[in-house]
Amino acid sequence: MRKPVIGVMGGASVTDEVFAMAVELGRLIAERGWVLLNGGRNCGVMAASAAGAGEASGTVIGVLPDGDDHAASPHLDIAIVTGMGDARNVINVLSSDVVIALPGGLGTFSEVVLALKNDRPLILLGRTLEPQLKPHIESGRLRLAASPAEAIALAADFLTLGKQG
Amino acid sequence: MRKPVIGVMGGASVTDEVFAMAVELGRLIAERGWVLLNGGRNCGVMAASAAGAGEASGTVIGVLPDGDDHAASPHLDIAIVTGMGDARNVINVLSSDVVIALPGGLGTFSEVVLALKNDRPLILLGRTLEPQLKPHIESGRLRLAASPAEAIALAADFLTLGKQG
Amino acid sequence: MRKPVIGVMGGASVTDEVFAMAVELGRLIAERGWVLLNGGRNCGVMAASAAGAGEASGTVIGVLPDGDDHAASPHLDIAIVTGMGDARNVINVLSSDVVIALPGGLGTFSEVVLALKNDRPLILLGRTLEPQLKPHIESGRLRLAASPAEAIALAADFLTLGKQG
Amino acid sequence: MRKPVIGVMGGASVTDEVFAMAVELGRLIAERGWVLLNGGRNCGVMAASAAGAGEASGTVIGVLPDGDDHAASPHLDIAIVTGMGDARNVINVLSSDVVIALPGGLGTFSEVVLALKNDRPLILLGRTLEPQLKPHIESGRLRLAASPAEAIALAADFLTLGKQG
Repeated sequence: MRKPVIGVMGGASVTDEVFAMAVELGRLIAERGWVLLNGGRNCGVMAASAAGAGEASGTVIGVLPDGDDHAASPHLDIAIVTGMGDARNVINVLSSDVVIALPGGLGTFSEVVLALKNDRPLILLGRTLEPQLKPHIESGRLRLAASPAEAIALAADFLTLGKQG
Repeated sequence: MRKPVIGVMGGASVTDEVFAMAVELGRLIAERGWVLLNGGRNCGVMAASAAGAGEASGTVIGVLPDGDDHAASPHLDIAIVTGMGDARNVINVLSSDVVIALPGGLGTFSEVVLALKNDRPLILLGRTLEPQLKPHIESGRLRLAASPAEAIALAADFLTLGKQG
Repeated sequence: MRKPVIGVMGGASVTDEVFAMAVELGRLIAERGWVLLNGGRNCGVMAASAAGAGEASGTVIGVLPDGDDHAASPHLDIAIVTGMGDARNVINVLSSDVVIALPGGLGTFSEVVLALKNDRPLILLGRTLEPQLKPHIESGRLRLAASPAEAIALAADFLTLGKQG
Repeated sequence: MRKPVIGVMGGASVTDEVFAMAVELGRLIAERGWVLLNGGRNCGVMAASAAGAGEASGTVIGVLPDGDDHAASPHLDIAIVTGMGDARNVINVLSSDVVIALPGGLGTFSEVVLALKNDRPLILLGRTLEPQLKPHIESGRLRLAASPAEAIALAADFLTLGKQG
């Protein structure tokens, strides 16, 4: 049985508040015994969530857009080196059992959209809901969380549903 | 000098009105002497825009998500076979000088987001503007068109700016 | 009916003799009315074959490994921008009806191997046959050519077989 | 500090002897405390090496060509789902500190070639040396092993050199 993989997406340049939220989210993912997967670079939500998971001795997988690991977070356990730029965003989403998206830019938003397209359970943490995504809330595949703890609880629900489904 | 490449994105399943709009857009692109690039499949906006360009003897490039060409539109001049699923959406955007997005689903929306992320001039044709994209209108990289003719005029503006820039 | 697409693979840095062979091959492909597809960069066999096809007013598609077209040959009609590094070698092969490989390095050799793996008809032009590829000659999917004219004749045979098959 | 990642490549359909060799190799990689990375599917060298590493409580990463995990080995700790077909072979190679190739078909051979192209230390285990690869032995980036234990010793050498280099 593989451990659940939680994909954490978010900006490469974020506020201190979002950074702290990502650290806490990473820590909570690790404490649950889940694997954290993110975009692997040493900045923003990627660096913060990896650091949080690392502090709690969790497993961190970073899927890098680069062709080598020079920009990788030091908190990765495994660096998946793709050399594929934005195309690696697809891999991030497909490899996650649940995707949690924090505030970020267009790269993060592309992962939000790709998660919905590929029917991955998706949790928006600390993000405003884009109006056009509302139908996905009604379908039950998209949930909103105000705190890392709430995101973790929602992720646990999704994982339980996934096992039953 | 390469001819301009206009990427036309849109849903695989669309209304008759959107289908007709895509046919006309394809025709107008061809009449300008531009190359039409789309997702290559024989359905929705892909099929319609390819057919329109084909009728006007234009060049049509289809970048297929599949590993072969069994689902390709018969109106393609060139089928780029990627076998990469949604990752080909990145190629669609990067290979276009201007991207025009018609109504569609999450795949189309991922291309809208990736176009903005990669700084490709973007025209929304017959689409409602998502509120979170408004800042890109102000920056001048995103324009709205109500008709294929208007989209073509905006694309011509972007191409002129590109040559000067 | 799409025109046949002939993928021409070969080194980024080659001898004058190989360069001249690639120019002639590109010219002959164009004279047949076929489309030339290669790796798109402005060096070696890519530049030479594109120039040859361009002189004969042929259509040239370059599938670039880069995320933009700064390194593209000026003789491309269409630049497919992948931003995917070596992963674009897979696209080169999948998008070609016949692959012709000239002398080159490991990138070219990866395309030779991927062509055989994906059951694309393959012609080695001016290359020594690697001993482990001999079984593919016996199966009829791999042929050897000593000159561009011979490669063209073999490609024509493969295309005829493909239409019948 | 990340643990070393050893990429194990080999055929999807292999002899009992090669299968047994892959099981032992996986076990030895795990006993060293290294991470095993392979192509993830539940057949041939992928299944065998994952099973061997799993028995020894090692960490196994499978980089799948498929768009979901239906064909994954049950011994994976992490499934990287790419949906990219053969393009995932590039990721296998780029993500490995050392690549060990067992007997296999053209897919495995493409990974051998891509490893050399991307300057990854490469060990051929139980394979005949293709004559055209001999120059890479002389350059020191390619070594031959007759047994899993020998392959492990050579990998350890490469990893030590990598740390010094």
